[in-house]
Amino acid sequence: MSSSIVDPADPVFLLHRGGKMAVASTVPLTSREDLSLAYTPGVARVCEAIAADPDLADDYTWAAHAVAVVTDGSAVLGLGNIGPRAALPVMEGKAVLFKQFAGVDAVPICLDTQDVDEIVAAVRALAPSFGGINLEDISAPRCFEVERRLDEALDIPVFHDDQHGTAIVVLAALRNAASLLNRKLGDLRVAVSGAGAAGVAVTKMLIAGGVNPDQVVVCDSKGIIGRHRTDLTGSKAELAASTNADGRHGDITEALRGADVLIGVSGGQIPETAVAGMAPDGIVFALANPTPEVHPEVAARHVAVVATGRSDYPNQINNVLAFPGVFRGALDAGATRITEAMKVAAADAIAGVVAESLTVEAIVPSPLDPRVAPAVAEAVAEAARRDGVARR
Amino acid sequence: MSSSIVDPADPVFLLHRGGKMAVASTVPLTSREDLSLAYTPGVARVCEAIAADPDLADDYTWAAHAVAVVTDGSAVLGLGNIGPRAALPVMEGKAVLFKQFAGVDAVPICLDTQDVDEIVAAVRALAPSFGGINLEDISAPRCFEVERRLDEALDIPVFHDDQHGTAIVVLAALRNAASLLNRKLGDLRVAVSGAGAAGVAVTKMLIAGGVNPDQVVVCDSKGIIGRHRTDLTGSKAELAASTNADGRHGDITEALRGADVLIGVSGGQIPETAVAGMAPDGIVFALANPTPEVHPEVAARHVAVVATGRSDYPNQINNVLAFPGVFRGALDAGATRITEAMKVAAADAIAGVVAESLTVEAIVPSPLDPRVAPAVAEAVAEAARRDGVARR
Repeated sequence: MSSSIVDPADPVFLLHRGGKMAVASTVPLTSREDLSLAYTPGVARVCEAIAADPDLADDYTWAAHAVAVVTDGSAVLGLGNIGPRAALPVMEGKAVLFKQFAGVDAVPICLDTQDVDEIVAAVRALAPSFGGINLEDISAPRCFEVERRLDEALDIPVFHDDQHGTAIVVLAALRNAASLLNRKLGDLRVAVSGAGAAGVAVTKMLIAGGVNPDQVVVCDSKGIIGRHRTDLTGSKAELAASTNADGRHGDITEALRGADVLIGVSGGQIPETAVAGMAPDGIVFALANPTPEVHPEVAARHVAVVATGRSDYPNQINNVLAFPGVFRGALDAGATRITEAMKVAAADAIAGVVAESLTVEAIVPSPLDPRVAPAVAEAVAEAARRDGVARR
Repeated sequence: MSSSIVDPADPVFLLHRGGKMAVASTVPLTSREDLSLAYTPGVARVCEAIAADPDLADDYTWAAHAVAVVTDGSAVLGLGNIGPRAALPVMEGKAVLFKQFAGVDAVPICLDTQDVDEIVAAVRALAPSFGGINLEDISAPRCFEVERRLDEALDIPVFHDDQHGTAIVVLAALRNAASLLNRKLGDLRVAVSGAGAAGVAVTKMLIAGGVNPDQVVVCDSKGIIGRHRTDLTGSKAELAASTNADGRHGDITEALRGADVLIGVSGGQIPETAVAGMAPDGIVFALANPTPEVHPEVAARHVAVVATGRSDYPNQINNVLAFPGVFRGALDAGATRITEAMKVAAADAIAGVVAESLTVEAIVPSPLDPRVAPAVAEAVAEAARRDGVARR
């Protein structure tokens, strides 16, 4: 079976041979003296000290800079429910990006269960080994409950990257796009296409960042979400209550009529005619990967600023702008959780890196820009301290 | 509280500052092209390939060389039940030893539960991320059930190091001690002091390696284990049925009367008079750390060969001689479990490294001997293939 899928000489498969990560010792281990310090008998004294004062684990173990990247393999990239083992290459990828951009030591944990109770139990069980939990590629709506329950149960940061990483970078990009067009966030009419993990989080984040909820319309596969819909529960019911003050009905074309902003996080296709109905000087973020909801060149015929999730077009909305710095800042501050203000601070920091050099083709920094993660980390740590969730 | 326990200038605490390990990327991540291979969009093709053929995870993820070092913190070194966070320095120590001696990438997983069902559930859940599970410092008798259930449930090696690592090195040392004294294992009368995790496993391993079970006597804190005891369940009841054919009664002094070998794995003290009652040319392995059951200089007055668990006396029985090579070999062979024959092969390989240069002060290799892990790995992988548990 494998021979039809794998070309061992392909650069992707060549690079992945043997995996993408390793563990390294940060202490010498070449003499008996080394062994007696790093292992028995010396190590026993460090254990005793932590047993007497658990906060010392921050100083004398790797947990203070280690993060678990946890998935159940249920919503991996655009590939869907491919299970934990097939999800591992993505989690290794996240782990090496954590290291590269923020010096965070991340470990992939791919869970052999998709039951919410079992996921929560497993992550609670392994939490003492880590300083933070990055949830990844867990399908909606289960991801909301998993995150909420873990956030309540644990005293370390829990962050579902598909929700909040995306939302942070979208807010950063929208800040800069609005700035470029001399618009205020509070004046923009926003249509969000997609009410899964990313759509829900993006909507909440934009509102936290200054967008007027009355002027936000969210669509799922059945059309505009609002009080007229009788089929909604959970986070979609919350959206129906908190957005769409005008009580709009209909499909994405209706949602986009006169809108200033389209945020596509659905993967579904949006017709050009719908984009053509947007207000002048519009903004389109079509983030589905690899096929944006509307092709960026098509969108550019009708709006002023276009961004995608792809690396081969300008303005790539890439989570890597957010998650390394968010965790670095949270760990540096010893944050017990990640608050809304910490996420907004992260977005502002990302936006700030390119605020002085804005063009329609550069509303966000490059994913490789080394200024981003330190700026995000500093802003997040400061916000944690302001919010009273920092232990240091 | 911490100030009374921690001297930050102490070499042990200085070395442990920030922990002892890190994650490293093994792929380049400096260009957009690098990102598109290691992460999206390239990584998606690797995920799809593994989804279609799960065995490809061996080739294209780090799981094939990654091991979880799992503890519940219930029996850490000689410190007892200090909990998961205080256990972390020991688990990091194991992890860096795994890397140093066998290139195995090990990750500490300290579980916030001491319930057998929850431990088993958590480890089953996280297993897809790893190629093996090293259980560590879990107290008896729970460790037996945890290991048995995980061994049955998982198709990767599960190995409780406190049991089998110790047992392998004890068998290696006893082989060489017997060889030095021109004795056969099958002729030796053996007394084991301690019927916890290590005592049970040592007894089974010695029998698997050629010691006559009829000539083995095991003692717990209440004395000699045998059919006369009505208080025994589980693995102690098994010992009562399978050892002590002569039906000996009494305490450790009775157990040692005329014995050729004492294996101390209890931590309890054994009086010199008891050791004095052993047969001529005896062998004493007093493995409690830091205080051996009988002081090695005291034992040496009465027997021919003495070993301890300490690095400051000759013949250190140190698990590091076993676990790195055992897992390296099991991973190299893609073993689905660790069989008795694989453990015996590991012991023979350890013994073999110094077989040509035996002295009473060198019946086992130094823990730092770089020849050990490769020899163990090769022997373990070969045994896995002979036993039909190898996937490659």
